[in-house]
Amino acid sequence: MHKIPIQIRFSDIDGVGHVNNVVYGQYFDVGRLQYFHEAIGETMEWNKGKILVLVRTEANYFQPTFLNDTVEVHTSVVEIGDKSVKMRQRIVGTDGSIRVEGYSVLSTYDFDTHKSFPMPAEWRNKLLAFENRQTGR
Amino acid sequence: MHKIPIQIRFSDIDGVGHVNNVVYGQYFDVGRLQYFHEAIGETMEWNKGKILVLVRTEANYFQPTFLNDTVEVHTSVVEIGDKSVKMRQRIVGTDGSIRVEGYSVLSTYDFDTHKSFPMPAEWRNKLLAFENRQTGR
Amino acid sequence: MHKIPIQIRFSDIDGVGHVNNVVYGQYFDVGRLQYFHEAIGETMEWNKGKILVLVRTEANYFQPTFLNDTVEVHTSVVEIGDKSVKMRQRIVGTDGSIRVEGYSVLSTYDFDTHKSFPMPAEWRNKLLAFENRQTGR
Amino acid sequence: MHKIPIQIRFSDIDGVGHVNNVVYGQYFDVGRLQYFHEAIGETMEWNKGKILVLVRTEANYFQPTFLNDTVEVHTSVVEIGDKSVKMRQRIVGTDGSIRVEGYSVLSTYDFDTHKSFPMPAEWRNKLLAFENRQTGR
Repeated sequence: MHKIPIQIRFSDIDGVGHVNNVVYGQYFDVGRLQYFHEAIGETMEWNKGKILVLVRTEANYFQPTFLNDTVEVHTSVVEIGDKSVKMRQRIVGTDGSIRVEGYSVLSTYDFDTHKSFPMPAEWRNKLLAFENRQTGR
Repeated sequence: MHKIPIQIRFSDIDGVGHVNNVVYGQYFDVGRLQYFHEAIGETMEWNKGKILVLVRTEANYFQPTFLNDTVEVHTSVVEIGDKSVKMRQRIVGTDGSIRVEGYSVLSTYDFDTHKSFPMPAEWRNKLLAFENRQTGR
Repeated sequence: MHKIPIQIRFSDIDGVGHVNNVVYGQYFDVGRLQYFHEAIGETMEWNKGKILVLVRTEANYFQPTFLNDTVEVHTSVVEIGDKSVKMRQRIVGTDGSIRVEGYSVLSTYDFDTHKSFPMPAEWRNKLLAFENRQTGR
Repeated sequence: MHKIPIQIRFSDIDGVGHVNNVVYGQYFDVGRLQYFHEAIGETMEWNKGKILVLVRTEANYFQPTFLNDTVEVHTSVVEIGDKSVKMRQRIVGTDGSIRVEGYSVLSTYDFDTHKSFPMPAEWRNKLLAFENRQTGR
């Protein structure tokens, strides 16, 4: 499991007094980018060439997060398809409580052809290898 | 179908050059609050008493939205359960193109007891009546 | 005075219960872009060629704004320098109350040379003409 | 000088390709809250009792920040008035480059009386002591 602490910002808190539901999407982004950065490396830009784009997200909100809470985002790749990757992410308190659990599907996308393309073997291998190295952490 | 235009902000656009995926959650909020405001009226606060809280969201991202696009959020109640409401929302361009489609589940929640409670008949009736009035719009 | 209504979003409200101070910057952006769009027209991109970039902002926060308030952003060009424009913007309630007053300085910037350049006469004239047409509104 | 690293989020980047000007206000918030937390301690809530509220901000934008940059926010109290505190904050790259410099004025505010009040001697002393401890860091 890839883990990274989240720096909560004052404006993340909404009028109800806890982290706004929408903001968790930003936390998930932090985890996802860091995951890809570590797993696949410097090769991925996000606005040109061959990349992965978010095509679906889902999230279940279990418990609120407050301004002074300490939380991490935990990220795993749970499925690698022909042209897509499915990830599971959780926002977890230092007490182990799961605040939010989300799933996201990313599709391959080529900015030049505007189409998806078969998942490169290199990406698949790097993702699998990285995911394996995280096991037990 | 309840419809409301969205005012896109410059900072909604991310480094890829279109509306950031996370920001669509803010657009959905705009539609959802306006829907409840019109359907149920002034009676709902969001940080005390008996309210509805978001417990699940999902979204499929079909087409990007750009800074100078004109988009609306379309909102419907698609299911009213014993203690929850399910809504469907779409971000739709003025050309009719669906950019994003999302579903959300809201649960009843009582800030005093910290528990859910049976959907009040008044809410159910108002939501059904409002949804019926939107038909064909 | 150029005026445009602001669509307040749920997540604009912070833990104190009113619009977060930082969010007013997004409201000012909405007014500023619309102002330039109407005054200078379609010719301005924001990430290539010859543009204006924000180099300084200041803001005084007088009164809070709440979720159900109705506010506008009022925008004027108050000074056109050799290579810069100074704008005054206010967030104003429909009751006339000034919630926030801000000033911003934009400098000319050429993405090709990475330098400022003398304000084009066409921009100066269009801004002056537009500002004059707003007088008394 | 109080220093804290900033966790940049993907959505902080705008259509121009660097951190959106407005987002720096969120970074300054992170520094300011942490400063007060360390200097004054657990005693300050932000939505009740006797607190400090932001009444003025100003910022000069010198250099852009990119997604993969590593930046810190540096915070100092530069003036303590009868009823207010003035702070200077900078967003600084790990190469020492100043990206943005901002000043903010916070006024005392009592949520019960809705008025300012004389700066408590305890706050003044704690802020001065904390600021002194930061010197040379």
